[in-house]
Amino acid sequence: MTDLDQPYRGGFIGPEHHFALSVYFEDTDAYGIVYYANYLKFMERARSDMIRAVGIDQASELAASGSAYAVVEVDIRYRRPARLGDDIRVISTVEDVRASSVLIHQRVMRREEQLTDARVTAAFLDGQGKPRRHPPSWVEKFREIAKPA
Amino acid sequence: MTDLDQPYRGGFIGPEHHFALSVYFEDTDAYGIVYYANYLKFMERARSDMIRAVGIDQASELAASGSAYAVVEVDIRYRRPARLGDDIRVISTVEDVRASSVLIHQRVMRREEQLTDARVTAAFLDGQGKPRRHPPSWVEKFREIAKPA
Amino acid sequence: MTDLDQPYRGGFIGPEHHFALSVYFEDTDAYGIVYYANYLKFMERARSDMIRAVGIDQASELAASGSAYAVVEVDIRYRRPARLGDDIRVISTVEDVRASSVLIHQRVMRREEQLTDARVTAAFLDGQGKPRRHPPSWVEKFREIAKPA
Amino acid sequence: MTDLDQPYRGGFIGPEHHFALSVYFEDTDAYGIVYYANYLKFMERARSDMIRAVGIDQASELAASGSAYAVVEVDIRYRRPARLGDDIRVISTVEDVRASSVLIHQRVMRREEQLTDARVTAAFLDGQGKPRRHPPSWVEKFREIAKPA
Repeated sequence: MTDLDQPYRGGFIGPEHHFALSVYFEDTDAYGIVYYANYLKFMERARSDMIRAVGIDQASELAASGSAYAVVEVDIRYRRPARLGDDIRVISTVEDVRASSVLIHQRVMRREEQLTDARVTAAFLDGQGKPRRHPPSWVEKFREIAKPA
Repeated sequence: MTDLDQPYRGGFIGPEHHFALSVYFEDTDAYGIVYYANYLKFMERARSDMIRAVGIDQASELAASGSAYAVVEVDIRYRRPARLGDDIRVISTVEDVRASSVLIHQRVMRREEQLTDARVTAAFLDGQGKPRRHPPSWVEKFREIAKPA
Repeated sequence: MTDLDQPYRGGFIGPEHHFALSVYFEDTDAYGIVYYANYLKFMERARSDMIRAVGIDQASELAASGSAYAVVEVDIRYRRPARLGDDIRVISTVEDVRASSVLIHQRVMRREEQLTDARVTAAFLDGQGKPRRHPPSWVEKFREIAKPA
Repeated sequence: MTDLDQPYRGGFIGPEHHFALSVYFEDTDAYGIVYYANYLKFMERARSDMIRAVGIDQASELAASGSAYAVVEVDIRYRRPARLGDDIRVISTVEDVRASSVLIHQRVMRREEQLTDARVTAAFLDGQGKPRRHPPSWVEKFREIAKPA
């Protein structure tokens, strides 16, 4: 195994989590741009990476307790389209941490150009889909990375 | 070709466009529910069907002029999850028709239970991605089906 | 609830299971055709519908025993592309029923034109991913619908 | 822009092109494994990266001439499933270069464990979907990276 065999990981630059990706055929549609639902996939990859970066292992949590973060609200504005072959990045900041949810601001950028602007609320749910307080150590981690208002 | 060979079409019940579908494996994720981005696919199928039902042929328009409706804003709340095998329906109403965009309210229902609630703004864009006035006959069609406020 | 609120169901015409669908923006890519992986989604919808039509409830089985059909082999030829707005159908026949798997022939058609030709082997797996004999009543059902060689 | 802002690129180790990625929620299904069609997305990302690595710019070619590689055949065996959070890699080798197509062997690996094994034929098509000879310089590039039989 070489460096090539390590998947990309994003990371923090101050309070901003950066996650870069390229646009492939699967992401585009017949109008020639990234299909609107696929930005939500990019944003989820970025959030998963951010959550991993703060030390939370979602896959283990899901296997052990059946709990997971599920999105309960998305407000997104599409300003400019991404296209096949574009190199883009998702910049995420934690805006608010509540008892059983977290509010994340996510922008998709192509160089200095902002393509989308979104606010996403993810709630921590138990195996039956009921909201559950996140573990105190997780709340602490989210608070540490939250951007001061 | 028999009736079985005709794809499903939704239709209007008063100002409400109804579009029914079943949840397949492709729609779900490892948490056991429909993945959040996939509701946007369901909603786009319903909008495409509604647009076709009022007599607009998006595929021909795209081929002829390069123009298409592109989503510029989505505000969605996820209230309850859909699951594998569920029969659900998307109920869409036109809430506002502007010079080059249309605002659509879309709810995903499982019987009488509301699963999601969304407002979607779709702008009519030319082949270069610039907003373009929709053809007057289309504006008229959207106005006819718009729910009185 | 009206007829509009009932999702499409395919069905059998002799040994052939027919499943019709329309091509939406989500299915296409920037080259203007249905993205190659998405035919596998169409084929899975058709198989799920066929399995349901013979009286097998996959969602209940998954919930009860953790077992499911998983695809172990696909051989597919793409002959002609489907495009935005096309009405197509998947025609599926059971070609072979084994102790813990089933071989299905699936063609995607646009009217009388064949777009793809595929053979798919689906194995019945338990909750740990190990092959498991299908219930005898299911084997019988598959044998009944299998096309005589 | 920092290193974090550069999307992952795969690369060659001898004749083998390596492309690493992580499994996200979008890739999985309710059975808890990567959905079978999504491996084809992983494989296409790897092929696109390989094609870019040999100096072919698919997005420019598509914009300039309307030509693109389209998959005409896939034979894939699914041996073991990938799961949420897995780090996997796609290893691709060019097995044959013909006048207007290329045959690529692609394996998905999790460490030393092989998850899938596939052969994919991609044909170079013009803007009308007709096979077209690839540019001689491209043929040469593919021949250079082809694994000696």
